[in-house]
Amino acid sequence: MNIVSVKASQSYDVVIGRGLIASCGEYIKKVTAAKSFAVVSDDNVDKLYGDIVEKSLKEQGFEVCRFVFPHGEASKCSAVLNDIYMFLTENHITRSDCLIALGGGVVGDITGYAAATYLRGLDYVQVPTSLLAQVDSSVGGKTAIDLPCGKNLVGAFKQPKLVLCDIAALDTLPRDFFIDGMGEVVKYGMIKSSELFDILSGNDIDSIKNILEDIITRCVSIKRDVVEADEFDKGERMLLNFGHTLGHSVEQHYNYTGISHGRAVAVGMALITGRAENKDLCADGTLDKLTACLKRYELPFSTDIPVSKLADACLNDKKRAGGSIYIIICSECGKSSAVKMSIDEFMQFIG
Amino acid sequence: MNIVSVKASQSYDVVIGRGLIASCGEYIKKVTAAKSFAVVSDDNVDKLYGDIVEKSLKEQGFEVCRFVFPHGEASKCSAVLNDIYMFLTENHITRSDCLIALGGGVVGDITGYAAATYLRGLDYVQVPTSLLAQVDSSVGGKTAIDLPCGKNLVGAFKQPKLVLCDIAALDTLPRDFFIDGMGEVVKYGMIKSSELFDILSGNDIDSIKNILEDIITRCVSIKRDVVEADEFDKGERMLLNFGHTLGHSVEQHYNYTGISHGRAVAVGMALITGRAENKDLCADGTLDKLTACLKRYELPFSTDIPVSKLADACLNDKKRAGGSIYIIICSECGKSSAVKMSIDEFMQFIG
Repeated sequence: MNIVSVKASQSYDVVIGRGLIASCGEYIKKVTAAKSFAVVSDDNVDKLYGDIVEKSLKEQGFEVCRFVFPHGEASKCSAVLNDIYMFLTENHITRSDCLIALGGGVVGDITGYAAATYLRGLDYVQVPTSLLAQVDSSVGGKTAIDLPCGKNLVGAFKQPKLVLCDIAALDTLPRDFFIDGMGEVVKYGMIKSSELFDILSGNDIDSIKNILEDIITRCVSIKRDVVEADEFDKGERMLLNFGHTLGHSVEQHYNYTGISHGRAVAVGMALITGRAENKDLCADGTLDKLTACLKRYELPFSTDIPVSKLADACLNDKKRAGGSIYIIICSECGKSSAVKMSIDEFMQFIG
Repeated sequence: MNIVSVKASQSYDVVIGRGLIASCGEYIKKVTAAKSFAVVSDDNVDKLYGDIVEKSLKEQGFEVCRFVFPHGEASKCSAVLNDIYMFLTENHITRSDCLIALGGGVVGDITGYAAATYLRGLDYVQVPTSLLAQVDSSVGGKTAIDLPCGKNLVGAFKQPKLVLCDIAALDTLPRDFFIDGMGEVVKYGMIKSSELFDILSGNDIDSIKNILEDIITRCVSIKRDVVEADEFDKGERMLLNFGHTLGHSVEQHYNYTGISHGRAVAVGMALITGRAENKDLCADGTLDKLTACLKRYELPFSTDIPVSKLADACLNDKKRAGGSIYIIICSECGKSSAVKMSIDEFMQFIG
């Protein structure tokens, strides 16, 4: 079992190990004075772990109520959020009680946002059950819901009291979702750790499962370092967007249904690294190393969408921040920086 | 013109004076780097001041868009909030732009909440146009919307960049709303300032209008002191609830439509002070002084609702905080403290 301590405006531990869900009550008891808990989950995850979490909490003498919504990104909306609020009032959840987000990124984002806003904020604990949520959305305090016109447009910064990453939960994760999470794992190696990148390059989608505790700990530690340096997303945190600018355009092209987030990020990383190598902005062979690594995890590294179309979508997205755009470039595997480009420079860079 | 500086997690000035709305652009330019502004208002206030605000902002070279919703508490809901979010995306409002809340408490609360959550937060400026909003909701950083089952159940702490209290706006305020605001003004005198209380007791609803700049400055300064000591509402800030516990029960009894907030608070202050005097918890004559003052501003100080019914409603509300209840008592006009009572003690106290 590993513990990564995060020092944000509110400090908390990320515990990474096997079998944490079954004993979650013991861990949670240590971090909150709450006596009543609302466990929020989706139908897929609730079926697998809802009863186990409830049992563990009740063993500690806690009151427990459970709210379950349909799985999928479509649930990360204001209608489900309002249902959660109503559920909390009906179950007399107060400011001194606690929410538990049991599930993947959608559950974590919307539950965290409910915890940030219901009664102007109460405690919450993250129990991420997907690889993507364990390495990404469970750390950093970003919570959100989607609007009909865009993802994550409404949200708040809200740090959890505790994050429990149960490796065992990944045993029940469909292969497809596991691959998706590996996209973000490779990203962490690329932006901050040649050591992690080398481990990934020496394993594959099967063998990596034997060392997940170490892998997830490394990813969470990297995200922790970045987030501690930039809690409110004003600088350093941009590095986490490596592969995301073009990746988001790929996702958008398929209306967020044709390709999963991690796979789109994989494509985005490969595209941007190819451009960077053409312009001598990174060491020779970086793209080869990256694509070889992506292949090991069955992740894509190219797309049929014309790159000019993707670039247009980027600008449409990013011009929101003014007349320039920040692109994250890895000068080698394990080292990244943000490069500010004018719109013209960006279009020329992308080709 | 007076300025009260508030030092919260984000510091800002409350400017109190006559004619501020017409030159709001100049003031706002000094506190934000934003170039685009979304002015949120209700139909009543927009009619009176919307064009004036837009003109002043445009004189500074700013882009302006305006969102107007129907006046009244019923608009402080998630449906109107979602309309605001959609309006902001349609008008390409970004994280570096700014919202302006132009109106009373409802406008201030929902606009502040939108500013706290849209894109995880952007700048906002309060231009409160009612007496109640100028002395109460515009200072302190509490933002919220209502749920069908209760008021202010969803919200966030979000400090504005600036508050402009234009005394001239009170000239157009219906007499009924002016009286309502005076309920909270008397409260400030009672909890923290015998000097303010004496001034109020030496004036009436007509003469007070000649010294509003001084009166509002005193109220805002008191609220500032209390809020600075307790930004996130964990202690001192409770004093602001003087008269509110029973007052809320009165409002609730009439389904929040039969009596206005300030009037209900007036009744609550009188009821609690009567009980306190009976139990020798305050100086003799305190209730007489309070009721005499309330009369001067045409505020009520009694109710036909049986006090046992009000007490039950209090408990239903406050047992949410555990097995005890905090009651604010003024030992004399200008001095207050919070007294923790068990449920039994409270019922005995109320009689």
